[in-house]
Amino acid sequence: MTNETKKFIKGGSFLIEDISYQDMLTPEDFTEEHLMIAKTAEDFVEKEVLPQLEYLEKHEFDRTVKLLKKAGELGLLAADVPEEYEGLALDKITSSLLTEKMSRAGGFSLSHGAHVGIGSLPIVLFGNDAQKQKYLPALASGEQLAAYALTEPGSGSDALGARTTAKLNSEGTHYILNGEKQWITNAGFADIFVVYAKIDGEHFTAFIVEREFPGVSTGAEEKKMGIKSSSTRTLILEDVPVPVENLLGEYGRGHVIAFNILNIGRYKLAVGAVGGSKSAFEMTVKYANGRQQFKTPISQFNLTKEKFGTIGSKIYAAESSVYRTVGLYEDNQGQLSTEDAKDIKKVADSIAEYAIECSVNKFFASEVLDYVVDEGVQIHGGYGFMQEYPIERAYRDSRINRIFEGTNEINRLLVPGTFLKKAFKGELPLFQKAMVLQEELMMLMPEEPGDEPLAQEKHLVKNAKKIGLLAAGLAAQKFGKALEKEQEILANIADIASNVYAMESVMLRTEKAIAKDGLEKSNQKLLYTQIFCQEAFNKIEADAKETLIAIEQGDTLRMMLSSLRKFTRHTPINVIAKKREAADVIIEAERYIV
Amino acid sequence: MTNETKKFIKGGSFLIEDISYQDMLTPEDFTEEHLMIAKTAEDFVEKEVLPQLEYLEKHEFDRTVKLLKKAGELGLLAADVPEEYEGLALDKITSSLLTEKMSRAGGFSLSHGAHVGIGSLPIVLFGNDAQKQKYLPALASGEQLAAYALTEPGSGSDALGARTTAKLNSEGTHYILNGEKQWITNAGFADIFVVYAKIDGEHFTAFIVEREFPGVSTGAEEKKMGIKSSSTRTLILEDVPVPVENLLGEYGRGHVIAFNILNIGRYKLAVGAVGGSKSAFEMTVKYANGRQQFKTPISQFNLTKEKFGTIGSKIYAAESSVYRTVGLYEDNQGQLSTEDAKDIKKVADSIAEYAIECSVNKFFASEVLDYVVDEGVQIHGGYGFMQEYPIERAYRDSRINRIFEGTNEINRLLVPGTFLKKAFKGELPLFQKAMVLQEELMMLMPEEPGDEPLAQEKHLVKNAKKIGLLAAGLAAQKFGKALEKEQEILANIADIASNVYAMESVMLRTEKAIAKDGLEKSNQKLLYTQIFCQEAFNKIEADAKETLIAIEQGDTLRMMLSSLRKFTRHTPINVIAKKREAADVIIEAERYIV
Ligand SMILES: Cc1cc2nc3c(=O)[nH]c(=O)nc-3n(C[C@H](O)[C@H](O)[C@H](O)COP(=O)(O)OP(=O)(O)OC[C@H]3O[C@@H](n4cnc5c(N)ncnc54)[C@H](O)[C@@H]3O)c2cc1C
Ligand SMILES: Cc1cc2nc3c(=O)[nH]c(=O)nc-3n(C[C@H](O)[C@H](O)[C@H](O)COP(=O)(O)OP(=O)(O)OC[C@H]3O[C@@H](n4cnc5c(N)ncnc54)[C@H](O)[C@@H]3O)c2cc1C
Repeated sequence: MTNETKKFIKGGSFLIEDISYQDMLTPEDFTEEHLMIAKTAEDFVEKEVLPQLEYLEKHEFDRTVKLLKKAGELGLLAADVPEEYEGLALDKITSSLLTEKMSRAGGFSLSHGAHVGIGSLPIVLFGNDAQKQKYLPALASGEQLAAYALTEPGSGSDALGARTTAKLNSEGTHYILNGEKQWITNAGFADIFVVYAKIDGEHFTAFIVEREFPGVSTGAEEKKMGIKSSSTRTLILEDVPVPVENLLGEYGRGHVIAFNILNIGRYKLAVGAVGGSKSAFEMTVKYANGRQQFKTPISQFNLTKEKFGTIGSKIYAAESSVYRTVGLYEDNQGQLSTEDAKDIKKVADSIAEYAIECSVNKFFASEVLDYVVDEGVQIHGGYGFMQEYPIERAYRDSRINRIFEGTNEINRLLVPGTFLKKAFKGELPLFQKAMVLQEELMMLMPEEPGDEPLAQEKHLVKNAKKIGLLAAGLAAQKFGKALEKEQEILANIADIASNVYAMESVMLRTEKAIAKDGLEKSNQKLLYTQIFCQEAFNKIEADAKETLIAIEQGDTLRMMLSSLRKFTRHTPINVIAKKREAADVIIEAERYIV
Repeated sequence: MTNETKKFIKGGSFLIEDISYQDMLTPEDFTEEHLMIAKTAEDFVEKEVLPQLEYLEKHEFDRTVKLLKKAGELGLLAADVPEEYEGLALDKITSSLLTEKMSRAGGFSLSHGAHVGIGSLPIVLFGNDAQKQKYLPALASGEQLAAYALTEPGSGSDALGARTTAKLNSEGTHYILNGEKQWITNAGFADIFVVYAKIDGEHFTAFIVEREFPGVSTGAEEKKMGIKSSSTRTLILEDVPVPVENLLGEYGRGHVIAFNILNIGRYKLAVGAVGGSKSAFEMTVKYANGRQQFKTPISQFNLTKEKFGTIGSKIYAAESSVYRTVGLYEDNQGQLSTEDAKDIKKVADSIAEYAIECSVNKFFASEVLDYVVDEGVQIHGGYGFMQEYPIERAYRDSRINRIFEGTNEINRLLVPGTFLKKAFKGELPLFQKAMVLQEELMMLMPEEPGDEPLAQEKHLVKNAKKIGLLAAGLAAQKFGKALEKEQEILANIADIASNVYAMESVMLRTEKAIAKDGLEKSNQKLLYTQIFCQEAFNKIEADAKETLIAIEQGDTLRMMLSSLRKFTRHTPINVIAKKREAADVIIEAERYIV
């Protein structure tokens, strides 16, 4: 991607506008430098972390702290920290690749992620110069470790329902914090907590709280289903005096920090889920190649191949989607001028721009991960149920991803909500596009895609967008403001959106690869694309149908369903055959391969 | 169900023939006596087992043994044992209800199930009189406990690939057994093992092995993902002398016992999965009623209601299917004359008759269970990831059900395989029906269902069978013997079969209930039926489509797809609205309710 061709792409526009592959980052665009740093992280995990994982699982967190410091020495904590605060100021692509590679380390990757991500980024992005000077160098080196404390026993999804309070003392020097923050990752050893509290029980605000402040303590380690090698505790705040200069961002505007950090957390979680999917898949393919039943390696059974083809196509979809999103951030937020990067509002806007993409990636990739580990266990048979086999841990570890950083339900609800808000503000030409669609519906002649590679997939992507527009437009028109309550419809629209995003991402990535490397070398990508687009399109059709039926009745419904049929008509491909073909390459490579 | 109206229903016939609701057992047919014994089991679990579960999870199996003996005193181990061997000789319905009620006890239910089921039943069903005299009284009372040892490190799905050997000693008094049986439930404390070994490395045969025999030992407890309160160990056999009179069943015909016991194990597993689904759902609904976010109980959010409606309809489908199958067994195997019940071949045939139903139930119900616990965790949010909450354990415990008693893949493959075998043998009129279908296709006028309750669902069931026939017939015709290798198609056909079975089961059950109690009192059942039939039918359509596309091409494919469309045309219902309605009743009852 050269700077000249880059266009500023509006968040959420993918639903109604097209981009060309030049404008999309793909893993094939990574530079030597990107891959080198990724390799450093990979080696670190392989040589330093994995041999200790057994102990980390038993909560020997001294080892975690040492490992993080070692990671600090290798520069693996400094990617997002500006150079003036002793960071490396690497691009978003690098920091995402680090996240992907770390994910092999199970619960440890969460310790790393919470530190460099939700723990440090509030200060990186929203701290003032003094705060950055004070805290960032130690965070970048690993001398100090960070955590993010938003959730409370009574407020999870409803983060703003927090009860933790802050009160300015009479001297005006300190805010006095009281409350309990629950399930705080890294709480067992973090030195710095970004804590959200309501000043005077009202003004939701972020604070930097040091562990050493009087009145700070933590509860016992939680007993969790998985990611046992991460520390999760309650952070207890009893009359903790926090210097006024530790108020982070703006008074009463803690939600700007909280939610934007979550946005970043979401796409990072998605990147990690892609990494986790790849490693769970690798152990599964290797296992299946080694295990024989009926005198045959179980990887050779066609049902196993069917699973491999499905998993491969799903990982390709998640990977293509998340790096597309990383690219959007790199182009936008990553390129803020040094001055703009100090302007809280500009920073917040640049993150919030892609809130839809972040949510879509978060739920899509975490569900791909759960799919992969579930099939991974299944392919291992009884061995998959035994703790000796790493797939067992992967299965338990992965389950949290659909819950934290906003549950997948909350993220689904955010997608159409944000989209409609943008449309109403005129940021996205939803209504114009919907009108064009209406006209098109009147006269639509079924279009036949050509025979060239990707012609069918382009056709499906195009029609998928129209279907999304049809469903979303109709829902908005029918329910207006009350659409908020129609959560089932909102979730269906979110699913359509995520599938559109993923379909377009695989299609463009493959198109880009073919343009660069030719068709032959891109065959595996083409297979994944064909499989994924076909299956995602079927799902879109089903979601749209259910939605229309929930909105309309009688003759109007019949008309709508017939409009839908116009957009869904196509000659379907034989996915069973394509999956076998893709699986053979995977079996040969013993891992996910493009 | 009175005896007079009862017809002998052929196994697998549901795919091509219809029955009337009089011929189907439903939970509404349970007698006072059935329910009383169920209550005994329920109370036992509640009062005796659950308070100790925490210790059982830590492998304190002395407690398990004591609990099983107590269960023995209450008659909870004797249901399947004939009276002449000090059993209770209760009907299959009772013994299934016991299984369902025990399932709340997590891993302990497996200790119980392995003892009364796969452990004892080989002797109950296939033992000779001397063996029954010797072993059954102690097994029925719990004085001795049983296990079933088929699997080996190298042979799981391929059970006949076992390497354990038996060799007659020179005196002709004992078989000398050598080998390792892996993952044997109850191995930590069982007194009696039914062991499969190859005589002279060739003739697969079952033996009754006592723990006290010299050379018998067990390995260490396995570290498992879940069902930690069950014991799982390797059974090690080193030159174990087994008296010749302990050869079970016939020489070289151990597979008849092994596979038929698995058939029973499969429908019992399905019954247990229904029980597990109900209890996981109950804890989830209660939790959701109690948890507030955004000042609202989370059960009141429409996305939660959508989940509740889906879960309710799935449990209804699984429950209706499994008790229908239990009824088939009760009518057939349960009513063998005392004499026939001693004829190994007749017993084996009576079990094998419903092999298709057993497999279909096994994979369907275990997948419903996994769906329920997965959504259960999700609805619990972060709390679902914490071991304090029983849903966390339920999630881990349930995962094994898709793996043992034949993996769900193996069970899927068995369905069309067995079906076609029966058809070729002339036991099922597949080919006649396929011909009729061909003719019908030529002249088919789309039929419109009436407006009366269940008219639509009857229509869908009827067409679902035709779709199954179309797909299976085409596949058999196209591939002939080679169909065996087309596992993806076989699995699709199995999925169609299981959905047909479940659709018909809910439809008939609801029809029966309406006939008995009237429409108003059957409303919840009707809702579940409408929801389930609509969604299962959509899945059938998708499976059939994928299958046709994998079989045919070009014009023939187009013709086939248009035939498929004839059968799938219908006015779909608004499942979103139906789910909300069903959910409100569930929320009020705080559990699965019909
Ligand atoms: C291991 C672990 C680590 C964590 N680490 C951190 C951390 O470092 N820092 C931190 O601040 N937090 C952390 N969390 C908390 C996490 O972010 C929350 O668990 C998450 O936000 C969900 O909140 P909750 O668990 O309270 O679920 P709830 O909000 O109670 O949700 C329960 C269910 O209700 C649904 N629901 C809620 N509201 C709605 C609605 N309006 N409409 C429809 N459905 C709804 C949810 O989707 C979910 O299914 C962690 C949690 C865990 C388990
Ligand atoms: C907790 C636990 C308790 C158990 N209790 C008992 C017990 O009491 N007694 C006993 O005898 N056994 C017991 N088992 C063993 C259990 O029955 C086996 O695990 C099961 O049969 C699967 O065999 P496997 O694990 O060797 O998997 P494998 O047979 O190796 O299968 C691995 C994968 O390959 C697939 N596969 C295999 N063959 C084919 C094929 N032909 N076509 C397509 N796919 C295929 C499978 O579906 C699976 O996904 C237990 C297992 C566990 C984990």
